[in-house]
Amino acid sequence: MNNNKDITSSIIIIGNEILSGRTPDKNTSALAKWLNKKGILVKEVRIVEDNINEIVYHVKYLKDKFNYVFTTGGIGPTHDDITAEAISVVFDQNYVYHKKAYQILEDFYDKKNFNDGRKKMAKMPEKAKLIPNPKTFAAGFYVENVYVLPGVPEILNAMINELDKIIPNSTEILSISCDLITKESEIADELKNIQKSFEKVVDIGSYPFFNNLQSGTSIVMRSKNQKKLLECEKIIRKSFSNLLKK
Amino acid sequence: MNNNKDITSSIIIIGNEILSGRTPDKNTSALAKWLNKKGILVKEVRIVEDNINEIVYHVKYLKDKFNYVFTTGGIGPTHDDITAEAISVVFDQNYVYHKKAYQILEDFYDKKNFNDGRKKMAKMPEKAKLIPNPKTFAAGFYVENVYVLPGVPEILNAMINELDKIIPNSTEILSISCDLITKESEIADELKNIQKSFEKVVDIGSYPFFNNLQSGTSIVMRSKNQKKLLECEKIIRKSFSNLLKK
Repeated sequence: MNNNKDITSSIIIIGNEILSGRTPDKNTSALAKWLNKKGILVKEVRIVEDNINEIVYHVKYLKDKFNYVFTTGGIGPTHDDITAEAISVVFDQNYVYHKKAYQILEDFYDKKNFNDGRKKMAKMPEKAKLIPNPKTFAAGFYVENVYVLPGVPEILNAMINELDKIIPNSTEILSISCDLITKESEIADELKNIQKSFEKVVDIGSYPFFNNLQSGTSIVMRSKNQKKLLECEKIIRKSFSNLLKK
Repeated sequence: MNNNKDITSSIIIIGNEILSGRTPDKNTSALAKWLNKKGILVKEVRIVEDNINEIVYHVKYLKDKFNYVFTTGGIGPTHDDITAEAISVVFDQNYVYHKKAYQILEDFYDKKNFNDGRKKMAKMPEKAKLIPNPKTFAAGFYVENVYVLPGVPEILNAMINELDKIIPNSTEILSISCDLITKESEIADELKNIQKSFEKVVDIGSYPFFNNLQSGTSIVMRSKNQKKLLECEKIIRKSFSNLLKK
């Protein structure tokens, strides 16, 4: 399905709590679902430590490789929140209070509650543009093609709605799936041939499923070309008609 | 907490179904929990496409950087399962039927059911060593410091128990957490100072939590040095005694 016209992206999940296994990552799935719907392919995800040098290294590499980079995590008020500073290094910009981001927080908090930790959430690369946060008001931001988002899933999800207005849609990636009551190995050969005949137009994936009542194989077809996708589905349904889950 | 004596690892999750958002990744969390308990730090995770060149690139890079690399996904019977072939390329070994892996499958399946798809699951780099699969018998394998595991969480989890016998333990990474009824920003300054006094010995992370009844901040302390860890906990509990969750 990949070609030069594809709009591509990568996601960087920042946080020791994910790498220690303490917190399962929910943000990849939320961002990936939204991006695929927008027609933006997610080509790679990296989960990295709360370490400035690491963050700088990965952002620099991925921003040149893909159309978009999305980071989550590390923009809160505490000492382990260092993403905004790292992005300043990436773009060689000063790491300063952003006037508008500061204003939003100043308006929201009583003067006596607007402490240094809260002020820190307005520090970012000096030419950053804001991504509104309708939930807790500390804004995300972007510089060029790098979009910096929070790690808390509830806040991230609220901000995806805002980001959706900022980033233009591409051609939607359509997807059809088809559940078969069979083992993957039983259909592997035939499926390989079908994939061959739709090479670079439809991506066909095969995934075993297990639930209490039945086990089987989900065939997932993905394409930007609706006509070819429907054609592929027709062939899959015909080839495996005796295995289709009722 | 990092120093030269640390045993380090990275995880590569292989699969378009994770990048499309269709399937949430559960394997990072399962592997990371197990590895941290064994005293092996997880330094980086990458989620990559079902694409041979991509897999080869990432495995080559990470195997030289860390003590261990664990891959999950792409070792099933279908056309999109290409991990074993990629690992053969990485180590410049022939991609062939592994005698023992083949034997295990041949013993398990009736002759008429031992089709090409199932046979494919015994193909791997010629000098691979097996990781037993007590669940579905198709073995995982390892070459040097690269451990190749399946993507289906139920099977992966069963194989982690086997892998635990193969990979030696290091000094366990101990962890203590402390829930405070406060906003992160209220304690940020004091916490930063405490982190400074335990630099490179105890990692202190701060994570907001929300549930139906309360919201607050979890302070997570991690270290290989039990004495320092307990000392750090004592200071945190004393510094924030009025904020401790009952």
